[in-house]
Amino acid sequence: MAPLPHSLGLIHAGRMDIRTPSTTHLTDAQRIDWLRLIRSDNVGPRTFRSLINHFGSARAALERLPDLARRGVAARPGRICSEDDARTEFAASKRLGVSLLAPDEAGYPPRLAVLDDAPPLLGVRGALEALMRPVIAIVGSRNASGAGLKLAGTLARDLGDAGFVIASGLARGIDQAAHRASIESGTVAVLAGGHDRIYPPEHEDLLAKIIGNGGAAISEMPMGHVPRARDFPRRNRLISGAALGVVVVEAALRSGSLITARIAAEQGREVFAVPGSPLDPRAAGTNDLIKQGATLTTEAADVINAVAPIMERPVAFEAREPDGEPLDFEAGASERARIIDLLGPSPISLDDLIRMSDASAAIVRSVLLELELAGRLERHGGGLVSLI
Amino acid sequence: MAPLPHSLGLIHAGRMDIRTPSTTHLTDAQRIDWLRLIRSDNVGPRTFRSLINHFGSARAALERLPDLARRGVAARPGRICSEDDARTEFAASKRLGVSLLAPDEAGYPPRLAVLDDAPPLLGVRGALEALMRPVIAIVGSRNASGAGLKLAGTLARDLGDAGFVIASGLARGIDQAAHRASIESGTVAVLAGGHDRIYPPEHEDLLAKIIGNGGAAISEMPMGHVPRARDFPRRNRLISGAALGVVVVEAALRSGSLITARIAAEQGREVFAVPGSPLDPRAAGTNDLIKQGATLTTEAADVINAVAPIMERPVAFEAREPDGEPLDFEAGASERARIIDLLGPSPISLDDLIRMSDASAAIVRSVLLELELAGRLERHGGGLVSLI
Repeated sequence: MAPLPHSLGLIHAGRMDIRTPSTTHLTDAQRIDWLRLIRSDNVGPRTFRSLINHFGSARAALERLPDLARRGVAARPGRICSEDDARTEFAASKRLGVSLLAPDEAGYPPRLAVLDDAPPLLGVRGALEALMRPVIAIVGSRNASGAGLKLAGTLARDLGDAGFVIASGLARGIDQAAHRASIESGTVAVLAGGHDRIYPPEHEDLLAKIIGNGGAAISEMPMGHVPRARDFPRRNRLISGAALGVVVVEAALRSGSLITARIAAEQGREVFAVPGSPLDPRAAGTNDLIKQGATLTTEAADVINAVAPIMERPVAFEAREPDGEPLDFEAGASERARIIDLLGPSPISLDDLIRMSDASAAIVRSVLLELELAGRLERHGGGLVSLI
Repeated sequence: MAPLPHSLGLIHAGRMDIRTPSTTHLTDAQRIDWLRLIRSDNVGPRTFRSLINHFGSARAALERLPDLARRGVAARPGRICSEDDARTEFAASKRLGVSLLAPDEAGYPPRLAVLDDAPPLLGVRGALEALMRPVIAIVGSRNASGAGLKLAGTLARDLGDAGFVIASGLARGIDQAAHRASIESGTVAVLAGGHDRIYPPEHEDLLAKIIGNGGAAISEMPMGHVPRARDFPRRNRLISGAALGVVVVEAALRSGSLITARIAAEQGREVFAVPGSPLDPRAAGTNDLIKQGATLTTEAADVINAVAPIMERPVAFEAREPDGEPLDFEAGASERARIIDLLGPSPISLDDLIRMSDASAAIVRSVLLELELAGRLERHGGGLVSLI
């Protein structure tokens, strides 16, 4: 690593992020079961955890899945991932050097691991070590200005020199500039598609350089998955989730980078924004972020000063909603009907549902889970749910 | 006034600033005495008030001035303004249509009037009405960019349409753009020199237009005073002091506009700053202000929203240090020596002086006043004083 420039020598981040030691290590058979469960229809990260916690293993949950979806009155039965399909994905991942890691395993970014919606299995390619170091995300416009590209590069280089790994989305524009400037110091590409479906395709070379220089790529999507528009906001939660903070360099109003910033704030991450002239539409989003409380950022020291106190604290595993919130699948027919009647297209909170239905929390959670597996429930931020 | 654009219709400021009604009206003879006192050497606005309060009138203070300065052991005796000189200035002011107003008189900007260092007599030319309306100051670089000039104009126009009077310093660049855009709605030029010594001279036309369209010019300096470099920071306290808030549009690091912003913050005024690219040196000062807590401003609504709650409250006359803090000129020789011994080139607070000298507050204040009249005392912000 290059010697620290004096102006950035406030903190030296060239060390592992502080976290509790890894305890879990899945067997291959368990990993196949986990893969089947998370690849089955209507099973997201939160449902995955609830099922594993309630039934004790992915295998046991898979056995009960058809029955639970039936109770939720599935419009069309969800597909359950077969063992063959899981083994095929597992083998294809292995061939490309992609490890499928559980949140407690070494190589899984610690800050991402503690999120409620952390992918149960994260496809990780490249240097696991890079993913254990403190991460700063840099994101911004695809059609960035020359000034924006230059600033993204300067920030990435200076933060890299200070020991941070730079995460970004491998897109054109700001992402590309941030990755390029941090190839030597370490950078992580967070993918919206499978590891073998790089978007945009012309960035395969850039990704090869990232991997070849001690960086990494991560994705929660299966091999072969071509990223669709709706995959990008979902992917963005991984960019911010893996990081201590997110720097937004140039963003128009209503741009994807602002979604990342909003998710980052919800995840409790620091949000940084580079200002620009009010006459420059590419600065409208970042200026707006600053109005809403993001830290105005003109140089790496602004970021380093803000994250320094956070780095002193260990990653808060305990911040995650406690495992094993009890489920109870023994709801009576009238109880189930009462809960479903309370649901509609308008989001309602779990607490309101419990109070208004007069049912236990475990019963309400279970009915919601059945509806979810049946593809009839949508989960919103802040614990709100609605019927689809 | 033009109809309010919808986006700015949050508040309508087209009314007088709320203040207690004027009570004072000086006689011509009193005004001449006040002018003599404030134009005498080593008498600043704070000393002026102390003297008037202690001796009951400017006339009585003038009579005691030589004696007090002698007690402060003046290196060279300060000049006392003669009655002839005062009458000459008074007449010259009148010929140019300049009124010399006391803080409690109609036409003196109410927010300026309540400051501790409000000029005892303010030279006011033009529409007194404009000075009684809510004021927003707009300041910035003399060598502004096209974008900066455009923004200053847009902000001034929109704030003017919303009923605010725009104050600025009549300089080239941002000041000029702000004045020009608010000529129709009302604008105030705050001068660093005498009313007959316009700087820069080529802005005499602009000033004529300001006055001719219901605007005004103010100055605390005597007629004929050519502004020197050190007069501008002093003048800047009047720009911010008259206003609810100060908008800084483009400012390099260590520029005069940043001094205005600092004074504004000390005066409890809102500080607004227009952001810019970190690669633009003309935005370095404004970005820095935002880092320090100024409100990021891209449009007039940012200003209007922030000052709306302040406008609801009457101007706080009571916020001013209570009049008549007692003086006591009967210090004994040893007491006076003890106080002077405690003073040096390093600033020290009045409170420390009182505690360390074991003298009464009235005695300490009086000795300091004598030293000031002798030209030996410098007053700093925050009640600190040092020997020259």
